[in-house]
Amino acid sequence: MNVFEALESEVRSYCRGWPAVFDRAQGSWIHDEDGRAYLDFFAGAGTLNYGHNHPVLKEALLHYLQRDGITHSLDMFSAAKRSFLERFHEVVLHPRGLDYKVQFPGPAGTNAVEAALKLARKVTGRETVISFTNAFHGMTLGALAVTGNSMKRSGAGVPLDHHVAMPFDGFLDGRTPDFLWLESVLDDSGSGIDVPAAVIVETVQGEGGVNVASAEWLRGLSELCKRRGMLLIVDDVQMGCGRTGAFFSFEEAGIVPDIVTLSKSIGGYGLPLALTLFRPELDVWEPGEHNGTFRGPNPSFVTATAALDHFWADGTMEKQTLAKGRLVHDRLTSLQEELDAARPGLGIDVRGRGLVWGLAFDDEEIADEICSAAFDNGLLLETSGPRSEVVKLLPPLTVSAEELHRGLDILADAARSAVDRRREPVAA
Amino acid sequence: MNVFEALESEVRSYCRGWPAVFDRAQGSWIHDEDGRAYLDFFAGAGTLNYGHNHPVLKEALLHYLQRDGITHSLDMFSAAKRSFLERFHEVVLHPRGLDYKVQFPGPAGTNAVEAALKLARKVTGRETVISFTNAFHGMTLGALAVTGNSMKRSGAGVPLDHHVAMPFDGFLDGRTPDFLWLESVLDDSGSGIDVPAAVIVETVQGEGGVNVASAEWLRGLSELCKRRGMLLIVDDVQMGCGRTGAFFSFEEAGIVPDIVTLSKSIGGYGLPLALTLFRPELDVWEPGEHNGTFRGPNPSFVTATAALDHFWADGTMEKQTLAKGRLVHDRLTSLQEELDAARPGLGIDVRGRGLVWGLAFDDEEIADEICSAAFDNGLLLETSGPRSEVVKLLPPLTVSAEELHRGLDILADAARSAVDRRREPVAA
Amino acid sequence: MNVFEALESEVRSYCRGWPAVFDRAQGSWIHDEDGRAYLDFFAGAGTLNYGHNHPVLKEALLHYLQRDGITHSLDMFSAAKRSFLERFHEVVLHPRGLDYKVQFPGPAGTNAVEAALKLARKVTGRETVISFTNAFHGMTLGALAVTGNSMKRSGAGVPLDHHVAMPFDGFLDGRTPDFLWLESVLDDSGSGIDVPAAVIVETVQGEGGVNVASAEWLRGLSELCKRRGMLLIVDDVQMGCGRTGAFFSFEEAGIVPDIVTLSKSIGGYGLPLALTLFRPELDVWEPGEHNGTFRGPNPSFVTATAALDHFWADGTMEKQTLAKGRLVHDRLTSLQEELDAARPGLGIDVRGRGLVWGLAFDDEEIADEICSAAFDNGLLLETSGPRSEVVKLLPPLTVSAEELHRGLDILADAARSAVDRRREPVAA
Amino acid sequence: MNVFEALESEVRSYCRGWPAVFDRAQGSWIHDEDGRAYLDFFAGAGTLNYGHNHPVLKEALLHYLQRDGITHSLDMFSAAKRSFLERFHEVVLHPRGLDYKVQFPGPAGTNAVEAALKLARKVTGRETVISFTNAFHGMTLGALAVTGNSMKRSGAGVPLDHHVAMPFDGFLDGRTPDFLWLESVLDDSGSGIDVPAAVIVETVQGEGGVNVASAEWLRGLSELCKRRGMLLIVDDVQMGCGRTGAFFSFEEAGIVPDIVTLSKSIGGYGLPLALTLFRPELDVWEPGEHNGTFRGPNPSFVTATAALDHFWADGTMEKQTLAKGRLVHDRLTSLQEELDAARPGLGIDVRGRGLVWGLAFDDEEIADEICSAAFDNGLLLETSGPRSEVVKLLPPLTVSAEELHRGLDILADAARSAVDRRREPVAA
Repeated sequence: MNVFEALESEVRSYCRGWPAVFDRAQGSWIHDEDGRAYLDFFAGAGTLNYGHNHPVLKEALLHYLQRDGITHSLDMFSAAKRSFLERFHEVVLHPRGLDYKVQFPGPAGTNAVEAALKLARKVTGRETVISFTNAFHGMTLGALAVTGNSMKRSGAGVPLDHHVAMPFDGFLDGRTPDFLWLESVLDDSGSGIDVPAAVIVETVQGEGGVNVASAEWLRGLSELCKRRGMLLIVDDVQMGCGRTGAFFSFEEAGIVPDIVTLSKSIGGYGLPLALTLFRPELDVWEPGEHNGTFRGPNPSFVTATAALDHFWADGTMEKQTLAKGRLVHDRLTSLQEELDAARPGLGIDVRGRGLVWGLAFDDEEIADEICSAAFDNGLLLETSGPRSEVVKLLPPLTVSAEELHRGLDILADAARSAVDRRREPVAA
Repeated sequence: MNVFEALESEVRSYCRGWPAVFDRAQGSWIHDEDGRAYLDFFAGAGTLNYGHNHPVLKEALLHYLQRDGITHSLDMFSAAKRSFLERFHEVVLHPRGLDYKVQFPGPAGTNAVEAALKLARKVTGRETVISFTNAFHGMTLGALAVTGNSMKRSGAGVPLDHHVAMPFDGFLDGRTPDFLWLESVLDDSGSGIDVPAAVIVETVQGEGGVNVASAEWLRGLSELCKRRGMLLIVDDVQMGCGRTGAFFSFEEAGIVPDIVTLSKSIGGYGLPLALTLFRPELDVWEPGEHNGTFRGPNPSFVTATAALDHFWADGTMEKQTLAKGRLVHDRLTSLQEELDAARPGLGIDVRGRGLVWGLAFDDEEIADEICSAAFDNGLLLETSGPRSEVVKLLPPLTVSAEELHRGLDILADAARSAVDRRREPVAA
Repeated sequence: MNVFEALESEVRSYCRGWPAVFDRAQGSWIHDEDGRAYLDFFAGAGTLNYGHNHPVLKEALLHYLQRDGITHSLDMFSAAKRSFLERFHEVVLHPRGLDYKVQFPGPAGTNAVEAALKLARKVTGRETVISFTNAFHGMTLGALAVTGNSMKRSGAGVPLDHHVAMPFDGFLDGRTPDFLWLESVLDDSGSGIDVPAAVIVETVQGEGGVNVASAEWLRGLSELCKRRGMLLIVDDVQMGCGRTGAFFSFEEAGIVPDIVTLSKSIGGYGLPLALTLFRPELDVWEPGEHNGTFRGPNPSFVTATAALDHFWADGTMEKQTLAKGRLVHDRLTSLQEELDAARPGLGIDVRGRGLVWGLAFDDEEIADEICSAAFDNGLLLETSGPRSEVVKLLPPLTVSAEELHRGLDILADAARSAVDRRREPVAA
Repeated sequence: MNVFEALESEVRSYCRGWPAVFDRAQGSWIHDEDGRAYLDFFAGAGTLNYGHNHPVLKEALLHYLQRDGITHSLDMFSAAKRSFLERFHEVVLHPRGLDYKVQFPGPAGTNAVEAALKLARKVTGRETVISFTNAFHGMTLGALAVTGNSMKRSGAGVPLDHHVAMPFDGFLDGRTPDFLWLESVLDDSGSGIDVPAAVIVETVQGEGGVNVASAEWLRGLSELCKRRGMLLIVDDVQMGCGRTGAFFSFEEAGIVPDIVTLSKSIGGYGLPLALTLFRPELDVWEPGEHNGTFRGPNPSFVTATAALDHFWADGTMEKQTLAKGRLVHDRLTSLQEELDAARPGLGIDVRGRGLVWGLAFDDEEIADEICSAAFDNGLLLETSGPRSEVVKLLPPLTVSAEELHRGLDILADAARSAVDRRREPVAA
């Protein structure tokens, strides 16, 4: 590890909580170079919905590389890209009645968000974008401006303008009607908030603390956007590709966003790929107005296409995810009840949808202790939320019931110990 | 191609000039699905310095994938990342006496630039960054602000602030001393230009029209930055990794930038990877202050490491590139003389370094006609420059002399025809 | 009037509603050049708290001009300025226990606001300023950014940044606890709103529609600012100088702002003058860091000093204003009841403090009709509010009871007629 | 003076160099309260072109006040405003063939500049404004952004955007052709500088160091603006109203700006007044889109009208100013020669036009010493320039030849002494 400390920047983060050197991976498991296996309930922060190195995808990728399929072709036409577009249309868009044009904006989620924001501003001729408390959209300057986290914002070194923050569902604990502030501001030409180009929202805020927007809230937001002539951007980088059950996380609410961003698991195998989708009427881009070197990584297209074929040709994946989600929900709820009984007043909250779950504690040190103990016991679990107060569960969608139970056992033990240490009254 | 038109956004660009569907690629050659072969003097806009699917890199990649080496691991420690860091240090940094920390800022060049700008502003506490006319640094909002192209800038939809443009070497045709304006502005506290955090520069502006900064100009800029307490950022995304001969394009000038960005060919095989390098004293990042999903793509590390081992363990690569560059220079100069003799007044300019060359014409339609005719004759050539007035040659560094001649023959024929069509006086 | 149409810009506004050429003025009355007299319940939008051309101030001004007292002296020391400073200290600041330094930031309210914002940002090193819905702070770029009105904002031609709008007292109709949104945003480091330098507030929003902040709300805001390390700026340009009873409009709430702006009536006679007041610890200005030609207009100092001596040496003025305010309140409330009875459902609201009162109607055309009819009957009355839906009463504080009744009679008649016209159902 | 130190902000500036309390003033003379008389070669930084308290203007003002002419009337029609508009048209605009609409944007120069910038951006739909090195346009946020001085800029506390600085005439010492950089930037769509809305320029930069733009340079700039579709704004706040000879400072160059700002001496008597003038086609303001309390100060209209009648009904004023200017020029040139002979290498420069002159020294302490010694000998003289390296002469245009000689004698003596002190080599 000295190599990393000597050569890599202090900006590195995940490696600090998980001080092992990882070498191989398969399915829900990662192995470090000492041969120790870790059950992965982190899944590349949502990049590995199909687990590590899924054999079907691996096969397709190896075959493509072996036959010297073109690897890098910028945004030239390629056979691999065409296959992806066709299958994405047939398997994902068409069955859902979604009529979207596809842009390849660069290889990462933040590129997809930048393209979405640029397009929304270009189409409307307006500058302000509404974002939500505890949103996470990326680290490049445009995406960072609509991201909530103050530590990350202060890294910008310049003011982050042209956005207005609004309360996410639940942020104000139900002490005010939904959208009261947003609607009032739009109603009143003297509000001091310029007419927005768009609203950008995650249906579940992963980095923000596993905050789940209700279907009703999302429908309200969608209707409000329509009524007010604002474009609705759903950032599905982390929650898309089946994480919440359906392929798109907004399907459950029955809404159709104007613009959608995808990345992370869309490549299927953990290879970089990102998409910005939008209604055809919004496709006002000039050729090359947004470009980039890695817009069309063919190996990513190959694994992405294989993943669509293998996992999304029918509704099995969605059903399984929802079933596994119920299992997680039930076990976390039991755990919450047990801990509440053992040590009342910890302010424990269980929340999630599909296979993204959070176990939140008022005392943010508890979440940290749990994740640390879990690592010691062979389970990768990340904290999230503005105070890192939430244990976040993001297992591969392909996780088995047995693996789920095993991980939840480790989590439960870690939680019991952490809570146990708090049973003694703290001296004044 | 109907699939692309039906499903892909109008933003697509390269495919418009090269209407073929590419399928396989090897070395300097790309094949479309109809079996036609194209000689590639575009090389992924500098991403394929080692050609397409180089067998040594391919072997390493296949081996890694076959043994289920971990693919996606965010910024966790991985064995593949460690190997890359070690070899990058041993093969690149240490022999050149460069003491840089390495940041993996996300998978594309624009991410590397965003990280560089953020860090420069954070370190200095200042906001303004000096960029140069016809610079190209990327499409995300921070990088776009320091990019010159007005069409791309207008895609932002918001004002692009916190930067000041200065004339690149040669921009004012030698009608004014180098840095006269920049120095005068810094000298005079009443200039209206706030003290800059940093200067960001490409040593050769590829997208901007193959504009070559002289070693003397670069030294002058470097000294000026030191004298004035501004950080010097060299964006080596396109010109690094040997494109101009040496590994870094700034080596020839003997300067040591404070911050360097790399991407494109650093992955070796065309897979996404980007690096931001900086002096250790500048490493003031908080853990996670800049993050991103695809910061550590292990397949890219594997091919990147193999490329360092194979091409950069000794000085052969650099020597060969310079020799091939001389060949290109000589042939382009002969062609220029021939065309000038046949049709004076076309304002032809030959410029370049290493294996990046430009053939510029006053009449921008000529460049376009040449590239179009070249494609018809099986050669991929891109235009560049603000008016697309420059034919840009960017062959793989691994191109053979025979391939070089073949491509240059096609180019020369295309140029002769284009110029020929202009011999008849245009009717008023 | 043809002269005005031919030569003056279309930006002119008040003259459109009051198409007369005014010539002379005295006390509560203005006379046009045809000899017609108008009772002035507009009072220069709060500039003429002591009426037009008050004889005591006029005497002091004439004497100063006749003896060739220095007129213009930038920010040099002058005897007239010293007298003003001394009396402002003795009559206003000291008796109220206010320890403020005085800055003369330029002649208008917007200059005072610009200086306040600059100082708040300089002192705190932060950029964001919190403003409120329907705030009005001025037309120069810094002040306009914290102003709510969208028509005026769109005049900027550039985005108006570095501010966040929050709901003013009553904006959300009591459907949410005071400061819930503001406190939640400050509590949560992931809110996406950067830590503010300051809050700028009017205690009564005159232009915004005579929206009155309760004393309790102001105290809550003041405490919140202290707790959170944000500076509290009270913009008392329109509501200061006795408009609400006490000299400063914030006195009733018992709060002490960090920064206060004054203009309009501080000069006493309608001559330009503006002040920015702040706690001595905040006086971090460099000499000349904010300057301007008309910072020290001596004739304004002379009338300002005379006004302090004449009106503020004891508490009479405040008592009289409050008594007159009660008279207005009672008559407006009676009128409201009468109109409600005659025509239910008009959504009439009576609101105000001291001698600033508003009569609001759901149907914004009613307010306009009333003001128009009032003008025809010799009374100047302005509308305000984002939809011009409020009749605003701003008589001179020196108005007599008889004049008040006369003006209120005209207003009542105009209101009855406007409402009467609405008794018949509107044909489709 | 303790009153000032105790009560007034540290931002005060002129009073620091001239520590006297001024009381009365007449013509070219100011008297402090101890009865000492000072010859005023500062003239309110250009506000007192007609001297202090000119008897003709005073008479008109007293008469207006005595008859209770309306003092404050916002932007209502008033008889005094009409007289001013008529006379301004008849005496100033019409004889010069200038077809301008008049806006009263607020009482100070900075308000006139803000209105000009807002209008230029609104008309063109663009945001960037070109300003010049060492420009001074005002302290409110919009005007400050186009002002050069770094100390004043840093007072903003936020980044100052939407402008690009260009070299003023002479800034680069003739080492580059005029407008080479500006034209090149506009020519090249890849320059990184967005198409500007307008150019704002002073014909002579007073605060910036008495930098005089040549008529040829101004014509070049005007033609360039026309050719490029940029609006030309001449900020004539300090140099207008006859300071350089003609009423407008741009007349000598024979150019017609699109927008002109006036303030300072336009009121005539030192009372606040400002004008923004523009071509009728540009008058796209909405009613009230830019407003303000002190847009129509009637006493200022009265003295402004009297000044037009008295000084500008014929060409005498211009001739006299030019003659006095020649006198100053000749004496300063003689002094320069004398000082150069006595002590070579001081880098003395004499520059100016009409009755604004500068005596610049390489060693900035000399200018400061001269002004300090002049004050001791009864002469008010200000320094200017980015390093306060220029002694600036700005006497009233009504100054007599005798007064001019007297002031220049004091200046000469002060200069000789300051230079004399530099004859001895400085000990190491």
